[in-house]
Amino acid sequence: MIWHPYTVQLDSDPPLKIVSAKEEFLYDENGKEYIDAISSWWVSIHGHNHPQMVAAVQEQAQILDHVLLAGFTHPPALELAHELLEFAGWNFHKVVYSDNGSTALEIMLKIALQFFRNQGLEKKKTFLTFSGSYHGDTIGAMSVGGESVFNRVFQSLLFPTRHFPSPACHECPVGKIPHSCMEDCLDEIEAYLSGHSEEVVAVVLEPLIAGAGGMLFHKPSVLTRLREITKRYGVLLLLDEVFTGFGRTGYNFAFQSAGIQPDMIALAKGLTAGALPLAATLVREEIYREFVSADPLKAFFHGHTMTGYPGGCAAALASLRIFKDENRLRDVKNLESYMEEGWAKLRSEFPDKIKNVRVLGAVGVGELYTGKEEPGYINTFAREFRRLCLDKGVVLRPLGNVIYITPPYNISKASLQKVFMAIREALAYYKVPN
Amino acid sequence: MIWHPYTVQLDSDPPLKIVSAKEEFLYDENGKEYIDAISSWWVSIHGHNHPQMVAAVQEQAQILDHVLLAGFTHPPALELAHELLEFAGWNFHKVVYSDNGSTALEIMLKIALQFFRNQGLEKKKTFLTFSGSYHGDTIGAMSVGGESVFNRVFQSLLFPTRHFPSPACHECPVGKIPHSCMEDCLDEIEAYLSGHSEEVVAVVLEPLIAGAGGMLFHKPSVLTRLREITKRYGVLLLLDEVFTGFGRTGYNFAFQSAGIQPDMIALAKGLTAGALPLAATLVREEIYREFVSADPLKAFFHGHTMTGYPGGCAAALASLRIFKDENRLRDVKNLESYMEEGWAKLRSEFPDKIKNVRVLGAVGVGELYTGKEEPGYINTFAREFRRLCLDKGVVLRPLGNVIYITPPYNISKASLQKVFMAIREALAYYKVPN
Repeated sequence: MIWHPYTVQLDSDPPLKIVSAKEEFLYDENGKEYIDAISSWWVSIHGHNHPQMVAAVQEQAQILDHVLLAGFTHPPALELAHELLEFAGWNFHKVVYSDNGSTALEIMLKIALQFFRNQGLEKKKTFLTFSGSYHGDTIGAMSVGGESVFNRVFQSLLFPTRHFPSPACHECPVGKIPHSCMEDCLDEIEAYLSGHSEEVVAVVLEPLIAGAGGMLFHKPSVLTRLREITKRYGVLLLLDEVFTGFGRTGYNFAFQSAGIQPDMIALAKGLTAGALPLAATLVREEIYREFVSADPLKAFFHGHTMTGYPGGCAAALASLRIFKDENRLRDVKNLESYMEEGWAKLRSEFPDKIKNVRVLGAVGVGELYTGKEEPGYINTFAREFRRLCLDKGVVLRPLGNVIYITPPYNISKASLQKVFMAIREALAYYKVPN
Repeated sequence: MIWHPYTVQLDSDPPLKIVSAKEEFLYDENGKEYIDAISSWWVSIHGHNHPQMVAAVQEQAQILDHVLLAGFTHPPALELAHELLEFAGWNFHKVVYSDNGSTALEIMLKIALQFFRNQGLEKKKTFLTFSGSYHGDTIGAMSVGGESVFNRVFQSLLFPTRHFPSPACHECPVGKIPHSCMEDCLDEIEAYLSGHSEEVVAVVLEPLIAGAGGMLFHKPSVLTRLREITKRYGVLLLLDEVFTGFGRTGYNFAFQSAGIQPDMIALAKGLTAGALPLAATLVREEIYREFVSADPLKAFFHGHTMTGYPGGCAAALASLRIFKDENRLRDVKNLESYMEEGWAKLRSEFPDKIKNVRVLGAVGVGELYTGKEEPGYINTFAREFRRLCLDKGVVLRPLGNVIYITPPYNISKASLQKVFMAIREALAYYKVPN
């Protein structure tokens, strides 16, 4: 009776029923244990059902379920706003709450547009986006994503943007040697801006890693140059940190790897570590200032019923506390070394099957050779691979030919070893198609 | 540090800090009690922190926080899908989970479009919408809403739709006498469809009451005729039951007032009664069937990380149980009579100030005369009115000149009496502007 997301409806494997979870493990009806090597879509950064997370949710539930956030506020929302701004190095001034990555992203787009409208700049309409990017599935979020299986059918509903090639260092779009370039991949954007800046609202980017688009990495200096260019041409820089935020790339937030100050960032996923839904958009003071007016037409009209609800904020507060108390950035560092080693070993064992391995923070990727010209996301091996790993008690969900591990940061070494063993065994079955 | 939704940033009243809640009451730091006469944006249908809701959230929190819903499922999501389909009279076949009303609505739009694409009907692109409607704040949800202060600034991002006048019976758009017409307000839509049906995807409507657009009521026969027209012209009927669902209009769902079968409905708000965020889109079998294919390009690619997460589903299950056990439809019936009486009294007392009163189910509305030509939502008395009521310990939030009461269904008679008293006292201050 459930229509499952992103699921082919005919001949799909039946969904596996999970009844409980703990640490990095999921358990099915028969008590079989599965290692959640993708943190259930990249959220369970502390593993599942961390006792302090459970306690925070339970405690808040009996105090205050919900109060509308227009005209009212409450302690968890207030405290979390402070903690988030601090966690982001006081680079931002205001927190706009919402419910998921898509809404956090759309809020960012809408604020950016209205920022210029409130100044009377009516010509600013265009967003600059990247080909391999993914920002969510609502119409606005799809509009700024690269064209893909996610949004292909819905083109007639999307607003037009200007696309540029993704700054993916391992397959440089301008043919440079990774890590010894001048971020030449941004030349095209700079050229465009030099002629069209008065029409451009913002550049939208997933910093350091474009996630669902294929785990495409770029180096921090790309962010540095992008910030420099956007500033020069009076254009905003909007970063989608839904996946990369909260330690995933080895920093609190990915933008901090470059020491830059974006205009806004969108957060979700790691924000509550998967305990409850919550999202936030962090906004710089210079942006907010254009909304400080007694004119209601300059106010930002956007909200969702449960915007900043107490339970979600309490969960996020608990998660930030655990993040610091248990030193998650150290966990990520260790995980990074271990995954580098693991993927290097696999690559040397399967040089004809693995085209590229790349690791950053708590993201470890192995990209397989594909013979056919098929959209990456639709790669047929992915399904077989999922099934093989599941048999071995490991949850992995390749993006087509891109296998990735995004585990809880505190996953045990033993579990991570099992994950690599499962990948190894599954790869033995892989035949690169002609 | 919080950027509050729908809030003028300069000279606004500081937000009131709420620290706890129980039944229909909210409590501030000083222990002052406020009657939540709008169910915190129309969600707290059982009042706040109902003991069984609290228990359900707490219990689920310690069992299973989250598992991705692609390839996996879990008991609360399964059980809720069954309960929802039953609660909707088995008119639907599949449940698509998401996080809030905007996403439930966008899922409905996307499925509708892809339903025709999967059949190779590429010309179907247009959605028919209504002037006074509101469906949410994401780009897609705004696109199908009437033009208003909510989406005015963002027109350049919206996809084009074809707007028709809202079927608001108390101020009939075609000048008929309410309740003795032939639903003539739909003639224009029918005329349009007779010439353009091959381009039209669907009609999108809030059934019985257009909520945020000004609490505009229409009678059930409008739904009947709309269903008849859309069927005849091969166009889908999509109903936004985010506000009207779960008893608000006196029926489980508003569409049931007309005995019709819409193609999809979008649900949120009352679904979890404000305990946690959750949304769902219910889909008819005939629609779903066009997605049953082994071709991945015919699959529906839409998901949010927390889609159908266990806590939200557990809360919704508890809410449905309470709804039946405590006979909420009976509560709504009683509330309706009581509000009819209360508004009638106020109207006879303030005939020069109150232009129209209307009550349906748990929605009681009094519309004030306004002299000035100002957008309804921006009415300046609304702010003063809010403040006056808050002083009396009552939370109300007029939509401009439209005062509405949408309380928990089980609000006590004593509390409701206080609400009407507060309105009465506030109205004494109202001077209809010239």
